[in-house]
Amino acid sequence: MKPPAEKGMALSEIDTPALIIDMDAFERNLGHMAEALNEHPVRLRAHAKTHKSPLISKWQMELGAVGACCQKVSEAEILVRGGVSNVLVSNQVIGETKLKQLAALAGEADWIGLCIDSKLGLDQASQAASAAGITLNALVEIDVGAGRCGVPPGQPAYELANAIAKDPFLSFAGLQAYHGSAQHIRDHAERKAAIEETIAMTKVTVDLLLENGLDCEIVGGAGTGTFEMEAASGIYTELQAGSYIFMDADYARNKAADGSPFTTFEHALFILTSVMSQPTANKSVVDAGHKAASVDSGMPEPFGLAGLSYGRPSDEHGVLQMNGTNQPPALGEKILLIPGHCDPTVNLHDWYICVRGLNTADAKVEDIWPVAARGAYF
Amino acid sequence: MKPPAEKGMALSEIDTPALIIDMDAFERNLGHMAEALNEHPVRLRAHAKTHKSPLISKWQMELGAVGACCQKVSEAEILVRGGVSNVLVSNQVIGETKLKQLAALAGEADWIGLCIDSKLGLDQASQAASAAGITLNALVEIDVGAGRCGVPPGQPAYELANAIAKDPFLSFAGLQAYHGSAQHIRDHAERKAAIEETIAMTKVTVDLLLENGLDCEIVGGAGTGTFEMEAASGIYTELQAGSYIFMDADYARNKAADGSPFTTFEHALFILTSVMSQPTANKSVVDAGHKAASVDSGMPEPFGLAGLSYGRPSDEHGVLQMNGTNQPPALGEKILLIPGHCDPTVNLHDWYICVRGLNTADAKVEDIWPVAARGAYF
Repeated sequence: MKPPAEKGMALSEIDTPALIIDMDAFERNLGHMAEALNEHPVRLRAHAKTHKSPLISKWQMELGAVGACCQKVSEAEILVRGGVSNVLVSNQVIGETKLKQLAALAGEADWIGLCIDSKLGLDQASQAASAAGITLNALVEIDVGAGRCGVPPGQPAYELANAIAKDPFLSFAGLQAYHGSAQHIRDHAERKAAIEETIAMTKVTVDLLLENGLDCEIVGGAGTGTFEMEAASGIYTELQAGSYIFMDADYARNKAADGSPFTTFEHALFILTSVMSQPTANKSVVDAGHKAASVDSGMPEPFGLAGLSYGRPSDEHGVLQMNGTNQPPALGEKILLIPGHCDPTVNLHDWYICVRGLNTADAKVEDIWPVAARGAYF
Repeated sequence: MKPPAEKGMALSEIDTPALIIDMDAFERNLGHMAEALNEHPVRLRAHAKTHKSPLISKWQMELGAVGACCQKVSEAEILVRGGVSNVLVSNQVIGETKLKQLAALAGEADWIGLCIDSKLGLDQASQAASAAGITLNALVEIDVGAGRCGVPPGQPAYELANAIAKDPFLSFAGLQAYHGSAQHIRDHAERKAAIEETIAMTKVTVDLLLENGLDCEIVGGAGTGTFEMEAASGIYTELQAGSYIFMDADYARNKAADGSPFTTFEHALFILTSVMSQPTANKSVVDAGHKAASVDSGMPEPFGLAGLSYGRPSDEHGVLQMNGTNQPPALGEKILLIPGHCDPTVNLHDWYICVRGLNTADAKVEDIWPVAARGAYF
């Protein structure tokens, strides 16, 4: 699919719908995270499942990140081929095909790791590494409250870690301890309480392993909603925040400690959409629906247009409705939507249209980047 | 992105997640629609927004369809380049870039049409056709109950049709009269009542135009949920059903006239997914989440596995939970999910893996088709 813009175009000339990066806000978000982590003895291993772009991972590494993480072997492949030398698949990898590909990557990159939460996972990873003549770095994933993957903290984690450490084709690299659902707890005190439990479970496990001679070089986890808590924990060594670069509408619903909106990061990702029908004076139908914006975490939100909401999405349409007294945008007019959830929204698009000066009259396309690992979900 | 399978592979060898067509059920669905419409004086113009594949459109035309319809100019481009000679963009097209592309297509294909519901849309289409030295076929979209795009039926539709008929670069081709939301009304009597209103509004408009010397060659609309009603209306000439080829979980929630499930078509599209973690005995985590299955019309449903439900989707995970007493599938096991909504699910994938004998022990990959117009939403 060809890009909906060319370098140098004005914002108004971009075809719609299009996925837009506000380069100014994006760069401030990158810089802010690098600075925030400078205060703590933790490394950033920014999550590439958000952006799916080796180019952005390398930029994050230039600003201090130790490497990237991703969720799938096919994503790791595109990152490594794109020049990212240090990649953790922060997820279980099951199946001969996937593990063979991962083992091949370990021969190309500086460092490749995966997560394990079962005996079968260990055996399959060991066989793949053995067949490829390499060693795979393996983290034990522990369930620290999310209730998804992972062995229980404490003794079960130790037993699996010990089995990994004894395996000749695996290298025990530490723990994966991510509490995904806690990222989106709106109230700060509740979010903090959830992560305090997560940190406590992780500490018990790290201590138990250390008592038994197993050092966790990596204790990984955290996301955009809680990274300051894990950063200050004294236990986590690598933070896996991803969405901070783009900051979607869902994360903006989180509250800061004083109850104010969570404004640590700025919205930097948008869907540019056009009004394609205006059947009545107070209703505008735009050309962005399910194929341009994911709605799994709520609707996208019109940017900078008070009194306007987006709703009734269908495959290629959405309806803007006035809540206030102003007129909605006119037929043919282009507006920006803040995605409800950035990761699956990015996954719908083939191109990032990078705009400089988005909020100025001189907004221009500075660059066009491929969403290189779009569809890489294997 | 490379395909997750090769021709000749057994179902169990396909990498996951993967988008699977049950070729036997798919062919039966194609045949059933062709037969059902043989009884009525209507043509099929099957909707390609469902499958996004010129190959499937051409197959539908071999079975009698007059052409294809789609929602976007970029989809139309891929259909025409893929050999589909007759394409209606069953949607408004606003903006110089898009209309220039559409006018260029009109020079390549046998028949290209679009919908218009505004004076601006008419003027822009006329200018693009004039600049390209061609004539564009234009339908007036009328709002027949969906409350999305379209001018009101009756006089406003006549006025716009008349303006189109008088334009030297446009050819008035008829009416677009689609009631999208009625497709998913569960109760048959309620669905029928909604479409009876739709048919009445359409008839009033067709009659008014005819009285004023405007003949509607095309009266287009209908979908998988209501096509039998429009087919029997005596008013509609072209039916735009799309989902019938795949039949998703959402459409399966519709009821037939006697209250039984809507089984006119069979489920023919699936997501093959693997259990990648089994943290407790009654919970299996699979490798298909938001990046493999759209959840905008409800969750995907495990196929042929009673007592099992899919839930808690995140970007790359879903959780299978037992409602009954059997054990869930084991770690590493592959299962099929029926997509909640086929169109946006297809749009996540680059490849169809076409399987013959899906429900037999000898299930094999017969072919691999690109989702050629994936991401074509401009």
